[in-house]
Amino acid sequence: MKNVAMVMTIQDPASQRLTWNKPPLSVLVIKKVQDVSVIQPFIDLLSWLIFEKRMVVFVEASVLDDVQLKNNTYFNPVRDKLCTFKEGKDDLTDKIDFIICLGGDGTLLYASSLFQQSVPPVMAFHMGSLGFLAPFEFANFQGQVTSVLEGHVALTLRSRLRCIVVRKNSDSLDKKSHSGVLVLNEVVVDRGPSPYLSNIDLFLDGKHITTVQGDGLIVSTPTGSTAYAVAAGASMIHPSVPAIMVTPICPHSLSFRPIVVPAGVELKIMVSPDARSTAWVSFDGRHQQELKVGDSLKVTMSIYPVPSICAQDQISDWFDSLAECLHWNVRRKQRQFD
Amino acid sequence: MKNVAMVMTIQDPASQRLTWNKPPLSVLVIKKVQDVSVIQPFIDLLSWLIFEKRMVVFVEASVLDDVQLKNNTYFNPVRDKLCTFKEGKDDLTDKIDFIICLGGDGTLLYASSLFQQSVPPVMAFHMGSLGFLAPFEFANFQGQVTSVLEGHVALTLRSRLRCIVVRKNSDSLDKKSHSGVLVLNEVVVDRGPSPYLSNIDLFLDGKHITTVQGDGLIVSTPTGSTAYAVAAGASMIHPSVPAIMVTPICPHSLSFRPIVVPAGVELKIMVSPDARSTAWVSFDGRHQQELKVGDSLKVTMSIYPVPSICAQDQISDWFDSLAECLHWNVRRKQRQFD
Amino acid sequence: MKNVAMVMTIQDPASQRLTWNKPPLSVLVIKKVQDVSVIQPFIDLLSWLIFEKRMVVFVEASVLDDVQLKNNTYFNPVRDKLCTFKEGKDDLTDKIDFIICLGGDGTLLYASSLFQQSVPPVMAFHMGSLGFLAPFEFANFQGQVTSVLEGHVALTLRSRLRCIVVRKNSDSLDKKSHSGVLVLNEVVVDRGPSPYLSNIDLFLDGKHITTVQGDGLIVSTPTGSTAYAVAAGASMIHPSVPAIMVTPICPHSLSFRPIVVPAGVELKIMVSPDARSTAWVSFDGRHQQELKVGDSLKVTMSIYPVPSICAQDQISDWFDSLAECLHWNVRRKQRQFD
Amino acid sequence: MKNVAMVMTIQDPASQRLTWNKPPLSVLVIKKVQDVSVIQPFIDLLSWLIFEKRMVVFVEASVLDDVQLKNNTYFNPVRDKLCTFKEGKDDLTDKIDFIICLGGDGTLLYASSLFQQSVPPVMAFHMGSLGFLAPFEFANFQGQVTSVLEGHVALTLRSRLRCIVVRKNSDSLDKKSHSGVLVLNEVVVDRGPSPYLSNIDLFLDGKHITTVQGDGLIVSTPTGSTAYAVAAGASMIHPSVPAIMVTPICPHSLSFRPIVVPAGVELKIMVSPDARSTAWVSFDGRHQQELKVGDSLKVTMSIYPVPSICAQDQISDWFDSLAECLHWNVRRKQRQFD
Repeated sequence: MKNVAMVMTIQDPASQRLTWNKPPLSVLVIKKVQDVSVIQPFIDLLSWLIFEKRMVVFVEASVLDDVQLKNNTYFNPVRDKLCTFKEGKDDLTDKIDFIICLGGDGTLLYASSLFQQSVPPVMAFHMGSLGFLAPFEFANFQGQVTSVLEGHVALTLRSRLRCIVVRKNSDSLDKKSHSGVLVLNEVVVDRGPSPYLSNIDLFLDGKHITTVQGDGLIVSTPTGSTAYAVAAGASMIHPSVPAIMVTPICPHSLSFRPIVVPAGVELKIMVSPDARSTAWVSFDGRHQQELKVGDSLKVTMSIYPVPSICAQDQISDWFDSLAECLHWNVRRKQRQFD
Repeated sequence: MKNVAMVMTIQDPASQRLTWNKPPLSVLVIKKVQDVSVIQPFIDLLSWLIFEKRMVVFVEASVLDDVQLKNNTYFNPVRDKLCTFKEGKDDLTDKIDFIICLGGDGTLLYASSLFQQSVPPVMAFHMGSLGFLAPFEFANFQGQVTSVLEGHVALTLRSRLRCIVVRKNSDSLDKKSHSGVLVLNEVVVDRGPSPYLSNIDLFLDGKHITTVQGDGLIVSTPTGSTAYAVAAGASMIHPSVPAIMVTPICPHSLSFRPIVVPAGVELKIMVSPDARSTAWVSFDGRHQQELKVGDSLKVTMSIYPVPSICAQDQISDWFDSLAECLHWNVRRKQRQFD
Repeated sequence: MKNVAMVMTIQDPASQRLTWNKPPLSVLVIKKVQDVSVIQPFIDLLSWLIFEKRMVVFVEASVLDDVQLKNNTYFNPVRDKLCTFKEGKDDLTDKIDFIICLGGDGTLLYASSLFQQSVPPVMAFHMGSLGFLAPFEFANFQGQVTSVLEGHVALTLRSRLRCIVVRKNSDSLDKKSHSGVLVLNEVVVDRGPSPYLSNIDLFLDGKHITTVQGDGLIVSTPTGSTAYAVAAGASMIHPSVPAIMVTPICPHSLSFRPIVVPAGVELKIMVSPDARSTAWVSFDGRHQQELKVGDSLKVTMSIYPVPSICAQDQISDWFDSLAECLHWNVRRKQRQFD
Repeated sequence: MKNVAMVMTIQDPASQRLTWNKPPLSVLVIKKVQDVSVIQPFIDLLSWLIFEKRMVVFVEASVLDDVQLKNNTYFNPVRDKLCTFKEGKDDLTDKIDFIICLGGDGTLLYASSLFQQSVPPVMAFHMGSLGFLAPFEFANFQGQVTSVLEGHVALTLRSRLRCIVVRKNSDSLDKKSHSGVLVLNEVVVDRGPSPYLSNIDLFLDGKHITTVQGDGLIVSTPTGSTAYAVAAGASMIHPSVPAIMVTPICPHSLSFRPIVVPAGVELKIMVSPDARSTAWVSFDGRHQQELKVGDSLKVTMSIYPVPSICAQDQISDWFDSLAECLHWNVRRKQRQFD
């Protein structure tokens, strides 16, 4: 008999499917702001969820102030049935069974930001926007939502990164810094408005790995590999791969190829002590703040992914979005014997 | 309470360590061929394993025919104590507790090829060759091997790909085809000696994903991402990431960026029906064979990895080899206020 | 007054236009082989040139053996008026005023190969093939050819590379080797059918510049920068730029970026003395031959370009072909406020 | 006889050499600021030029205020012999025969900025800084400067780009805008501090070529191809090639490869009318200014290059700097039969 038998467990992506413990009752609907074209679909969806499906429907409180909705007579019967919440004030934890987004990747990024721990399954309709994270078309939404409510669908668990900024001079971490910010695409450290190259030190599990001299550094999830990272030259990673991607932005070094590291590592990023200027950090393109010499950014993978409902399945959805959004390997076919 | 709580399990790479069920007794030693400089280290190692450590030591039968060894008087006392085997004839399964390689990546690729199922842990000394897969230095080998025998070491489980060629006209799969070939780096489908571009169809889980028009296609493990794939432009993936990398070779399409897919998918590669010429497939750079129209190549991740013993740990070993072998991000530092 | 006044002459690409010394009388027509769809256009063009324009029309002798033409009744009246020549036998120098190609880049490459010194202006119709070198559409060919005959057109002078293979053991250069081969796209030195990496030494003006370890090396004209070189990662160079491009194929080194050198340098390429295997050289994808240790390949820019007639002008033609053939920067536009 | 004989003139880079019309009498010496290590070499050089070579030596007026120099007793005898000028106030045209720079690429960029028309030949000592534009070592400066004064040296004519910002609402161009700014490396249009992607329209000779969606766009000289452009993925172009390089910065499109266009074209860059935000333009990393919707930037190649004196020759100097500054194709050699 073998002394040590080394066998790996390999997960079939097709095995990740949505399973409800009990029939879902409450739904949060998020719509794109400042886009007139989603007003009518939004009302249609709310009406159907409330009056046909008898569900408890949540929307953001500020939605009710939308002038486009206020003046819409179809919205009146819906308005009174809605539950509302305010971001940063009301706690949604354990109140929402699933989420519907109307309007492109921005709405899903917003949904992600609302849930800093476990996230309910999200069904995202792209509504004509670029749909990397939003695979569903709105036509015949009733049939599609019904399928989801019945649990007949595939899921992609999109991992998120927990980012914590540790300030040099803070004796104790304040609560918000401690819990950190979750990003679905990427955290970027760059030179911001400075004309000088960044000098950024990268550590993995406490070890100094390399120094980035260039415009900056992107730490992204596999989901984010097709966002800013791909523009900076990264390979594209399917969102189900448990990994963290590190991509330099315009590095001064010819040999600084992007790298992909295991999901379980801790990254630390600091402005080099001998850097000429500070750096700037932003989270999914938002909340930009300065990172001074001595400050550091810690990044780990969160155990709370965004469960993103597939229109078809994990593989088809991803390759469809590569073709649709990035024209991946779209080419004119060469004729035979040309 | 939440209807569905989505939480991911994230493995810490530092948690993968070697654990012996019982003290290891048998060891297979593989040495680089046609390299005089490894002869003396080889004899020193064998002597020490046999006479100091009282282990059962296996070598390949053909090694005994090596003229350099035959004429070496130090080898005589060792020779009689050795167990031998012949590749393709003797079954090593369950006989070997661990493996020591002397001489660079080639020896580890060879060790991998000997074990088509479970592989014993491998300790590889680079002996001055390029050492992506061989992190150990031979100086003070006694202390290092003793540490391994005592189980005080980190492991990297290097995944392998099972590759099966299915011929168009074979009614039934012959046994060898059926079990397939395992590769540790990559399987390559290219135009071989043909001057024409390849036209290769790629399928994932049965779906046609894209067509490659170019010099060919590399399907690699994360270990192989730093071999041929990196030369073809791929990002570099740590060997612990459970994923399969697909990299085109000189694609005619500007937008054909490499992709990384989950470990659990099945890939199928076929010469396009309208291709002008056939293609050629090779496995870890060996066993090149023609792939005709109608033939197909199936690739899945094997459950049998190569357990590769770390000199330090998973993270340090990998970044050291990136710097050493690929000069990754090695650059002259810009002076301040230059 | 200045001691030395340094001023450069900068040529406006729009200034390169076709000017006839005397009205053109003779035309060589080249058609794509093995393509039924060009038969009728071919006959239509010949008839018009002979009976309407009263020109002397040359075709290759082998064309008359084409079964498709023999059986075509429209071809009979044309046949008797044609002048013919045999490649490698009849000298076309000074006999041809201009050239018309029917059928894609291959026909222009062929036209180039017929004229090893000065080349008459070439008008190339793409006939539905990929048209990097063939910008004209055949519909309304009469108006377009008439414009060319009247000299109302822009020209792109496409530089060619003169390639001379010098064998190690040849006491004196034979005549053919001495004059060399002219390529319009590129000369490639690669590992051919060998599984080993190439080791190729590159010299410029007699100085050893670098050693290529990888699949091979492409030396291309700016015209060729959009052919094999672009697949290997090169930037794209407008054909009017006087330069030579050197692009490695899958180099083992991360930092081996393609380079562009001045038109006036001499390149020499040799298999490294310590290479494990020989290399193979091919010229515009043809005439593959082995390059052994000690042999060398010399490459210089020829003073005889291919004068390629523009459909619009140098700039528009090139960017149209980038978009059409390579989908250069074709992308879905992001919506506002998405 | 041929109707039209098409022959190209190909310039040998080795033919560009420095020739003095009369012995050079006046020299401008520029030193790196804020670097103590160049103080003593600066004084040594000035003394030697004044007392040994009897030349008229110019320095910037502000240099005399340098505290390091004021307190240096060796500087006193030199000080009184110096001619001074003030940037933007005194006209140097026709007063300077050649220029000596002490201290890296920055000093040569500064020298370039002082001469908006014809530039005297420049000899640049790198003084330990990154020396792409500064090939000379200071040890034995006397022999090297003497060689230059005698005219025994090769020259590289480094082309510059004339950049003119045209404001939407300016009825007439003011004088400074009209003459424009000359850059030696590159002009960059990017998103500046804005978090949004740029949308930039690119025109060549008045034709709309493409729209850049990404971090920005670099228009560079061949000299600049090894500066910011190479970090953004461009191929490297020898400074003698008459061409303009256009390189996108992190483009959203996978297929947006850098391009190289002939020296004679006019480029125009505008913020797209439907862009979400304005853009920022900077010239050789300086003078950053906002580019609003409707403003445009015109770029053409100047007829006034920077004549840069070679330490060896055009080819050797360039490849030495590629190896030294960018580690171009530096790699560990693979051993035979590894």
